[in-house]
Amino acid sequence: MQSFREQVESRLADVLDRRLAGAQPRLADALRHATLDGGKRLRPALVFLGSLVGHPWPDSEDERLESLWSAAAAVELIHVYSLVHDDLPSMDDDDLRRGRPTLHRAFDEATAILAGDALQTLAFGELAASSADPAVRLDWIRRLAEAAGPLGMVGGQTIDLSLAGRTEDHPDLATLADLHDRKTGALIRTSLALGARWAGLPARETRLVEDFGRLLGRAFQIQDDILDVTGSAEALGKTPGKDAAADKCSYVTVAGLDGARRELDDTVRHAHAALWELATLGADPQALSACLEFVTQRQH
Amino acid sequence: MQSFREQVESRLADVLDRRLAGAQPRLADALRHATLDGGKRLRPALVFLGSLVGHPWPDSEDERLESLWSAAAAVELIHVYSLVHDDLPSMDDDDLRRGRPTLHRAFDEATAILAGDALQTLAFGELAASSADPAVRLDWIRRLAEAAGPLGMVGGQTIDLSLAGRTEDHPDLATLADLHDRKTGALIRTSLALGARWAGLPARETRLVEDFGRLLGRAFQIQDDILDVTGSAEALGKTPGKDAAADKCSYVTVAGLDGARRELDDTVRHAHAALWELATLGADPQALSACLEFVTQRQH
Repeated sequence: MQSFREQVESRLADVLDRRLAGAQPRLADALRHATLDGGKRLRPALVFLGSLVGHPWPDSEDERLESLWSAAAAVELIHVYSLVHDDLPSMDDDDLRRGRPTLHRAFDEATAILAGDALQTLAFGELAASSADPAVRLDWIRRLAEAAGPLGMVGGQTIDLSLAGRTEDHPDLATLADLHDRKTGALIRTSLALGARWAGLPARETRLVEDFGRLLGRAFQIQDDILDVTGSAEALGKTPGKDAAADKCSYVTVAGLDGARRELDDTVRHAHAALWELATLGADPQALSACLEFVTQRQH
Repeated sequence: MQSFREQVESRLADVLDRRLAGAQPRLADALRHATLDGGKRLRPALVFLGSLVGHPWPDSEDERLESLWSAAAAVELIHVYSLVHDDLPSMDDDDLRRGRPTLHRAFDEATAILAGDALQTLAFGELAASSADPAVRLDWIRRLAEAAGPLGMVGGQTIDLSLAGRTEDHPDLATLADLHDRKTGALIRTSLALGARWAGLPARETRLVEDFGRLLGRAFQIQDDILDVTGSAEALGKTPGKDAAADKCSYVTVAGLDGARRELDDTVRHAHAALWELATLGADPQALSACLEFVTQRQH
């Protein structure tokens, strides 16, 4: 049995093979370097989880599954493009990603910008050409454009960069939540929604899935920030005070460790409320509940 | 009577107003700076010209026109995004565009990258949300993704950058044509095709419109390169030899002035052949013919 991550990897390789026949070898290599790196593939998994809210787990023989794979590939292509551009020297200036040179390091800056641009284009092309119902495809494209656009991912990165210059005054909790809701939350939420729409979930239930997705993304980030402190405290003897002194902007540095834990509890409670409402409408929120459990209980 | 260019400007302003409510002011300002600059708006004009091949000039009261404006806005948003990214320091490193500071000069590099990213997203979102028939919208998105993607615009820019480093050996004519066909030709061709598809032109005729569009884009570029030499020769006393010495890669430096003129004649002849075939199929190529005439006869 191939694992889900391996399946995603092979689907992404297929998309690139199909779309890059005749492309400049250097550009094609860059796109493959960025995309086929054994990432966690969280967003494609959320597309499939979202589909389970309104639909039994699809039989692997189900021909309709093919179109769900298009959505799974598209959200990951958008995610990969955002990582490539975020790593650029004028943004976060990172040299390594997942232990390998970032794209502008392995190639050059211009190629990294162009490869990111191309990945975004491929994502929308993939959705438009999928075998899903035309109305579903258009809904997907609208949602993905909103999640990736100026009010979503790009907007979140803009806020992030604007805060990077301000080392003295930390943002308040609301600004921090807004940043993460846009920068990573929007695509997480939308990945779930694409799956839910594919499964024919009605508009009201889909909105609840999105509410849940927003809270799931937030819980993930808060837990990340908490683990960064508590994990380090055990492993390196590093204290929260040190982290704050380094002016790292996180839920812990903004709200304190206890404050961050309270924020996580609040977020999880709201997420459960959304799942409860989904259940009362007759949808099956079991997979989402397990996902939330996994995110908040993880220790690394 | 508002001129067409003013109408495009106001449509683009509408799209930005609609899509940027709630965005970071700095990001919104950057998107407006890049987009609302009084550009030539050639590509939106080609969308409308393409529609005329299969359809009488639409009555301005025609409600369907609204959806054609979405296509016109989308191709221009893609064009603007490509200019913003091409101007970046790691690409062409330009400080001025149309007499104003380029986006990374007026703002900063990170904002310019993000604004370009957002413009691409907006283009696909605009097409998906238009009021055109769902099948037409999906066809538009597929075509635009192909034109903008690794085999189109991004591919052309990749070839262009790869040639910039090679100052000794000029590319051959085929490589130069391939570069321009991808970098600017693909979007020109596709702008015509979006209009043609909107007007319900059958697939065979649409392919001829695309063939014509590819040749129109090429004619435009060759004429540009010829004027760059002959225009300058009169105005500045600059000679073709000087241009070649500066290692500017153009149809004239690669094929010589006579060679470029022969190439232009060939291109125009092939373009006329495509129009002739369109006419024999019962389509009306008059607007396209006038456009070709305009492109090849212009003196500046």
